[in-house]
Order: sequence, then structure tokens, then C-alpha cells
Amino acid sequence: MALSVLSATAVSAEDAVPAEAEAPKSKNLIVLIGDGMGPAQVTAARNYLMYNKGIDHLTLDSIYVGQATTYADRGEDGGTVVSGVVTDSASAGTAFATGNKTYNAAISISNEDVSVPFASVIEASELAGKATGLVSTARITHATPAVYASHVRSRDNENAIASQYLDSGVDVLLGGGSANFISKEENGKRSDKTIIDDFEDKGYTYISDRAGLEGLTEENDKVLGLFGGSHVSYVPDRSEETPNLAEMTGKALDILSKDEDGFTIMIEGGRIDHAAHANDFPSMIQEVLDFDAAVKAALDFAKKDGNTSIVITADHETGGLSLSRDNIYELNIDLWDKQKNSSESLVGKLKEAATIEDVKAIVAANTWITDLTDEEAELILAGDGSSYGREGGYNAVISKRLLVGWSGHGHSAVDVGVWAYGPIADMVTGQIDNTQIALASAEVIGVDLEAATAKLQEKYLYPKFKVSREGQVLFPAKALAEALGGKVEWNADSRTATITHGDNTVEANIETGAVVLNGTASELASDVDNGKLYLPLEAFNELTGLSMTWDTLSERIVK
Amino acid sequence: MALSVLSATAVSAEDAVPAEAEAPKSKNLIVLIGDGMGPAQVTAARNYLMYNKGIDHLTLDSIYVGQATTYADRGEDGGTVVSGVVTDSASAGTAFATGNKTYNAAISISNEDVSVPFASVIEASELAGKATGLVSTARITHATPAVYASHVRSRDNENAIASQYLDSGVDVLLGGGSANFISKEENGKRSDKTIIDDFEDKGYTYISDRAGLEGLTEENDKVLGLFGGSHVSYVPDRSEETPNLAEMTGKALDILSKDEDGFTIMIEGGRIDHAAHANDFPSMIQEVLDFDAAVKAALDFAKKDGNTSIVITADHETGGLSLSRDNIYELNIDLWDKQKNSSESLVGKLKEAATIEDVKAIVAANTWITDLTDEEAELILAGDGSSYGREGGYNAVISKRLLVGWSGHGHSAVDVGVWAYGPIADMVTGQIDNTQIALASAEVIGVDLEAATAKLQEKYLYPKFKVSREGQVLFPAKALAEALGGKVEWNADSRTATITHGDNTVEANIETGAVVLNGTASELASDVDNGKLYLPLEAFNELTGLSMTWDTLSERIVK
Repeated sequence: MALSVLSATAVSAEDAVPAEAEAPKSKNLIVLIGDGMGPAQVTAARNYLMYNKGIDHLTLDSIYVGQATTYADRGEDGGTVVSGVVTDSASAGTAFATGNKTYNAAISISNEDVSVPFASVIEASELAGKATGLVSTARITHATPAVYASHVRSRDNENAIASQYLDSGVDVLLGGGSANFISKEENGKRSDKTIIDDFEDKGYTYISDRAGLEGLTEENDKVLGLFGGSHVSYVPDRSEETPNLAEMTGKALDILSKDEDGFTIMIEGGRIDHAAHANDFPSMIQEVLDFDAAVKAALDFAKKDGNTSIVITADHETGGLSLSRDNIYELNIDLWDKQKNSSESLVGKLKEAATIEDVKAIVAANTWITDLTDEEAELILAGDGSSYGREGGYNAVISKRLLVGWSGHGHSAVDVGVWAYGPIADMVTGQIDNTQIALASAEVIGVDLEAATAKLQEKYLYPKFKVSREGQVLFPAKALAEALGGKVEWNADSRTATITHGDNTVEANIETGAVVLNGTASELASDVDNGKLYLPLEAFNELTGLSMTWDTLSERIVK
Repeated sequence: MALSVLSATAVSAEDAVPAEAEAPKSKNLIVLIGDGMGPAQVTAARNYLMYNKGIDHLTLDSIYVGQATTYADRGEDGGTVVSGVVTDSASAGTAFATGNKTYNAAISISNEDVSVPFASVIEASELAGKATGLVSTARITHATPAVYASHVRSRDNENAIASQYLDSGVDVLLGGGSANFISKEENGKRSDKTIIDDFEDKGYTYISDRAGLEGLTEENDKVLGLFGGSHVSYVPDRSEETPNLAEMTGKALDILSKDEDGFTIMIEGGRIDHAAHANDFPSMIQEVLDFDAAVKAALDFAKKDGNTSIVITADHETGGLSLSRDNIYELNIDLWDKQKNSSESLVGKLKEAATIEDVKAIVAANTWITDLTDEEAELILAGDGSSYGREGGYNAVISKRLLVGWSGHGHSAVDVGVWAYGPIADMVTGQIDNTQIALASAEVIGVDLEAATAKLQEKYLYPKFKVSREGQVLFPAKALAEALGGKVEWNADSRTATITHGDNTVEANIETGAVVLNGTASELASDVDNGKLYLPLEAFNELTGLSMTWDTLSERIVK
């Protein structure tokens, strides 16, 4: 079930393709996403500024315009139900990047057994000749940037996402996650090869630290900047070599704004989410403020430029954060800046701790707490029962001292804020669904999501598949045949499925496994799994007369 | 520290008094308050409608305009620190009714040792000759209605609030809480007397059930409707005799809209908060929907009338509600309507339960759960460790089954939504502080909060006080003297405090207790408590030449 028009100013899907007569309202578009930044995360960061810094508002506050629903399509991935109402970053990202709901884990593809890709506003901008960019403090191949320039069934396939970026045309890529660009031989995560030089061959300048970022000049119109093997370090853990999000944002805007056709960029505060997952409240606050500084950089640019729209939202809330707990009408805000490093930075030390005294020493070294009780230390040693273990126990103790609560380590379904500046603001005001962000994004800069989607769908299909014991990739026969325009009939007597497409037929006997192509016996393999017939791609090529190939890395059919 | 102007359209305190030249933008004002209705409460109610009823939005959603900060002034009440950042309904209500921050528990008075009253938009409307009304599903003397038409140091003083309503001029009072209008002899809560006939003497029609409400005609321009001794029953527990909030709203609007000078009304969904305090999620949903139906009644009126502004907010979030828990990305929404009666209705039965089997029978009779585990039953028998006891245990079990979480039984500090219709909408759009609601309320209908406040402050003072062993009311000498324009000097040698005011002096020896008035010994008592000198009101009358009296019921000085 989809929310229909909630906002008086909502744009319908049909309206999203602007009439030719109407000029785009903005040349440039900046999308900022605070990953995991729910309402309580925002209030918390403002309270931190108010009570600890004497600053009475976030930059965000000056451009608040509404809130968005975030629910995911219920769905499954790899046989596991992964998707309830509570969205992940992939599903929410697909919604606000492409305008379509999907299942959790999906990177800009539909929620089907044979999924189709949906184009994002970045991809539509590419077609319109605009410069484009993706910036994140998470791995640049993490779900939120991924939905803007790649398409895979599972967000975990980050090596494929990295490879798809190479062909995406995105001009500026700044974030973490170099391991997904580097081979295992070179201590990366790729089985195939290092692809950084492939980017360089395509004209990208590769940088990996703040000096590299600062050193970029007007010559560098394509940049791959990867500041760490995985995510960019948390704010409290960052070294001098690591740029902050505002610095990345500023440099990306410098580069992209040179394009006369305008630009579209997505900038993510990616680690608000991670800190909230871990229930590391002090680090979460710093990540929200890091994001808010990037918002300021973007807003300063847009105000000066005069031809830029900004839209900002979160994909979901993370952690079920509550600004109070245990029936106490107070928050210990004065203690919110007294943790030195992130809880993540303590994982190794906590693992090695053998005694209560060890724990007390670790906590005393990283916080204001010199009076950790035995009970608290034991709670940390025991862990919190989640995969966060002792780190979870540590954060439970800290959160209780800070008077904030969490409902777990996952996401929650509360509506998230929407902030906007420039002509897009009127299109995302009030109560909206997150898909509206994509539709407004495309409309305000006059790019065509539907045309870009059609182009992708001509070329790719993303079926569920299985790999046989012999290592052959097999596809669900009925679902794929129907997706290709064929029909399937089942004959119970002969135990045979007959697939037809135009004049072609493929028959498969589910007892013998025999596959008959247009009346002629073949050597093709077939399989039955959970009552479903699976066939190899060759059968579908015979059926359709196409020469489709299987992209092993991206796990997609190329038509 | 106060938030300054957060919204581009914010109205400053100075602007709140309209220039004479400018005509009010609306004749009528409807304020609706969802008590305890934080962001998650709203999302939850919408999800309930979407997934269980096939309705994709709340009435509220069509008029969402922004969100408000809710923080309270830090303060104390009766020697106990009651006020942190996390507000209660009294402090938040004072903010959005009068435009001033105060301490938790304060009903429209300042956060001082000698507090001054602040006028609400209802009181300012009375001065402007408008009809006024207060409607709530809570006791009509509960904090949210109270802040609009009464002034006391402690919200618990509900008998005084009821008596102040008698002199408030408010035309329509509909809600619960008859016990605060009825003497103990007649099974009420008042030590003095029943005051319902005092209302009748002033022209109020008294009603106590739905039939009475329906029977009101054009003749009844003043109504006191009290539908229950305490709060109006929860939606799932209501009998046919109890009107819902939309019915109360409709009738109140019928009556008030007959006034040619226009009207101002505050309508509260008062029990969203109570259900959330108890962590009774299914009842909370029903209370939000009951409120949303009242919003629809108000909106229908305003659209037809064409001269009405509506502003809606919450005072705070209650319960630290999280829409997810335990790292599960799903909500069991299909079960959200499967509880028959509120958890409150089970309190008696749960108290009597002796065995696990007793608990299982109670739960089976009130819910869909026929497979309650021994562990769950034991949790209920043990209670949740809070004052909610077994009811808390029951709600913890239900909430876990529904996949929602709570951080406790208190309030939380997350920003709350703001919804608006009509000319006021532009004045409360974006990120605002809750005080802005009051300033915009007054401006849009052209009433004068400052003048109304000045009138109250001429007449009343709300000092902290103590009652001596002899039963005499004594006041903190320094604080009250200074509040009255006097000066206090301390002579350490003579152990004497000398208070001067114009030509008058009061001297008090803190060793002997002797009080000297203008050089002449007196019989007046004095006391020293925690190093603070206390004196009776007579001393201050001598000092100032005034004839101030002490209002025992409302615990205030009448000048």
C-alpha cells in the first residue's frame, strides 16, 4: 500500500517529467542524507549545541519544511524475509533516489523475483549532461550512495557497486571504502582485481587523504577520493589526515560547479547511523554536527550561487533513540561531550579486558567516569546480549549515565525530517512520502527519471538465481520467462513445464530434468528447488532469440 | 537559554502585539493539543490506518507545517528539583498558551521564588470579548487546559484550578474531572464545598453525559460538561454515555461560533499521554485516532467558516516510544487492534491474580494471545519495577509482541510536530520553539497577551511559602520584599535583616525572632529555615502600605 498525495504541494509521478514548455527551476541540485538521523537525533544535537556551546540552533533548523514516511515494501532477499515496514538504507535510498518503494537490501531495483532497475536522479542528471557527485563518510559503496549510481539485488555486493561506479559517469566520488576497489592480493576485498587504475584510466584523480583533497585544482574534474579502507573514521577518532564531511562537500562543489550544464550531488552523513546502531550516543552527536556543518557548506554555496536547490532528509531513524529514560525528566547534557573516542575504538581493549578493574581503567581513560560501579563493569564484561557484545554493554552504561535510551541496535519506523532550500522547497513541504523526494529532485532540475529508467530496463534484469552443485547459474523458469514476455503451462500428467515465447518453446520435464528446445532434445541442465523449476540462461536465449549474458559480478542479466 | 528566531516566519515577542493599524487575520482560533503525541505516536497511528484500515493518512497529515522544541526551564517546586530539559505538560502548556518558559509543574506562572502570572491566549481573548472554551479527554483541571485559564504554583492544586475557572469567564468547559468540583461529602475531592451550583448560578448549564451534550441548544451559551469523576474513559473502555472528543469539539464549536466577536478554544487529546505513560500501545493508538477525529471536526468547521485559524501541537513525547525493537525490521501492525480494553481496565484483575494461570486467563480474555508463555506470565506477576507494577509488566509483554519499545514511563525531549490551517500557518511554519505558538495565536486573532498579563500581574503574586507549626503562612522575606520593590540589608553583628520600602522598614532578628515595624516592636512571627528568613503577610503589608490578602486555595497573594 502506498501513501498517495499527502502534501498539498506533492508532485505526482506523471508530473515528475516536466512539460517541455516549463524550464527547470534550478540548475543544480544538492541532496543531503543524514543516515539514521531521526527526530531524536536532531533534537539531541541541537540540545548539545544549546546547553554546551551556547548556540541555539542547527543549520538544519533554518530550512525545516516537513517530514517523510519511510516504510519499506515487505519483501525477501535470498529466501530470507528481510523487509518489514521498518526500512533499511537501501530501500529508503531507492525511494528517495528513484521514487520507488522496494524491499530492504535492494539497490535501486524493484521488489520482484525478477527485478528491474530504477534510475536515480543522479543517473537522469548524467543523461542530461550534468556533472554528478557522491560524497559520504560511510564506504562510498554503502547503500545510500549506491542507490544513486548502481543496481544490485543485495547491498552487500559492494565490489559490484564499485565496478558499476566506473561506468556510471559520476564525476566526483568521495568517501570511505577503498577495500572494495582493491584486490585481495593488495589487502583489499576484491577477488578479481584492483580497479583504482581503471578509474585513473578514465580520467579520475585518485586521492586518499586530506592533503590530496586540498591539493585538487581546477584540472581535476573527475575525482575518486577514498579516505580509509572501510568507513571514514568517526569524528572523535579522526586523524589530521582525514577530511571532514564539510571539507569533502566544499571541494566537491568547487569541482562540480564548473560544469556549465549544472550538477547533481548526494552528500551523506553516513556514520550517524553507525554510531546509533552501536548505541554510541556521544559519537552520534558529533556525527550529526559533522553533517550539519556539511549542510552549512551546501547552504552557503546555494545562497551565493542562486541557482541551486537543496533537499535534505534521513533514510530512517536508528536505534530507537529516546531523549529521556527511567522516568527522569532530565538529560545530562553537560556530560554529552565528555567521551574522548568512539566506543568502536575501544572494541579491541574491551575484548582483552579480563577483570572489573580492567574495565574500570578503560572507561576512566575514555570518559569522565572515575566511579564506575562493579555492577556497571560487570554489565560491560557480560556484553549486552547483541552482536555488539562488550561495546554494547559499554554503550548501555554510558547511555544510562547520559539519561538517553535505545530500543535496540536496529532501525525504527518513525517519520524523518525534511529540510529544503530553493525552488525544491515547495515541492517537499508538509507531510510527504520519501519517494516524493526523488520526484521533486528530478522535476526541479528538469531531468527525466522515466527515460533514464527505461534505458536501464532495456539493458538489465535482476533475477533471483541459484548456483547448481556444478557451479552453473540457474534462474526461476516461470518468473524469468514471464518477465521476458513468455508464458508457462504446466502439464501434470507428463510432469512437464512448457514455456512459449512467440514461436519458440522450451519444455522441461521435472522428473527427468530433460530440457527440449523447440522440439529438439538439449544438453541443458535444469533443476527443481522447493517446487520451482530452474533453467540456465541458454534456455531463455533460445526461447527469446536474444543473446543475453550473465554479469557474474553484478549478478544481473545483460540483454 | 532560549531559542531565538528559528523560523524565517517567526514572530518576535514585540510583534505579538499587533499594530493597531493591522486587522487580525482570523476571527476565531482553535488550538488542538495532542498530549504526549510525539513523532512516533503520529507515525504509529498512521501505520495503523494504512495497514489495518486501508486509509493512507491521518487528517493531521494534510496540514503538517513544522516542528517545535519543547524544553522546560530548569527549576524546582516545593524544594524538589522537578524540572530538567524534559518538559511536563504544565511547563510546555505555559509556553504555548502564554509564550513563556517556566519550570515543570507551573501553571502559567514564572520560574521564580516569587512567581508572577502570565496570561494565556484564552485570557487575552476574554478581554477582547471573544467567547472561549476548553475541551479535554483528561480532567478539565489537568495541566493542559489549566494553563489557559488558571495560575497556580503546582499543577496538583486542581481544586484551585476548578475554582479559578469559575471566575475565568471561559464559556464552555468540557472534559473529565467532576471530583475537583464536588465536595468530599458528596464523594468528590474538595474540602470546601461543591462548586457546580456556583457555575449554574453564573449561567452555566451542567451536563455529565453524551445525552446531555447532545441536548444542548442555542440557549446554552455557557456549559460545564464533566464526563466522569477523573479522566474521560479511554476509547476502548468508553460506554455509550461517554462522548468522544470529536463530539465534544463539534458541540463546543456550535456554541462558541454564535459569538459575534469570535472565539478561542483549546481542545486536548489528553489521554494519548496517559496510555503512553502506562506503555499501553494499543490504547494510545486509539487515543491518537480519537484526537485526529477531533482535528477533522475542527478542520471541517474552519474550512466552512472561512475566518478561523487552527494550530495543533503536542506538549511533549511520552514514553520514549520506538517503532521497532530488538533489532527486528518489522512491526506487527496486524496485531495493533487486537486488544479489547485498556491495560488500565485490567489493574484490578491483575492485582487479584495469584498464579500464572490467572494471568494467562486475564491476557487471553483481553487480547489475541492464547499462548502466553510462563516467562511472560511471570514477568506480569512480578511487575515492571515501576509504579505501574503488574500493569507495566502486562504492557511490556504486549509491546514486545507488537514489536514496539519504550524507554520508560516518563516524557522525552524529542521535538514535536506542528500542524496548522488558515492564516496562522505561516506564523508557525518550519522549526520553531513552542512559545511561538502562543505569540502566533495572539497575533492572528489580534488579542493582547501583554495587556492581559499586566492585568493579572497587578493583582496576583505566587510566592513560595511555608506553613509554620502554628499553621501560619510565612513567606521568604528577601524574595518577596524584592518582588514588591523593597530592599533587604543584612547586619551580621546585630543578626538583623532590615527591609526597606519607601519610608517603611521591617527589621527581623533571626536569633530572637523579634520583628520590628517602623521602629516599633510587633507581635509578628518570623522563622528561619535553611538560612532563609520567613515573615507573615502582615509584615509586607506594613512594609508596602498595601492590603494584600492570602488566597489559601490558590496559594497566591491578592494585591
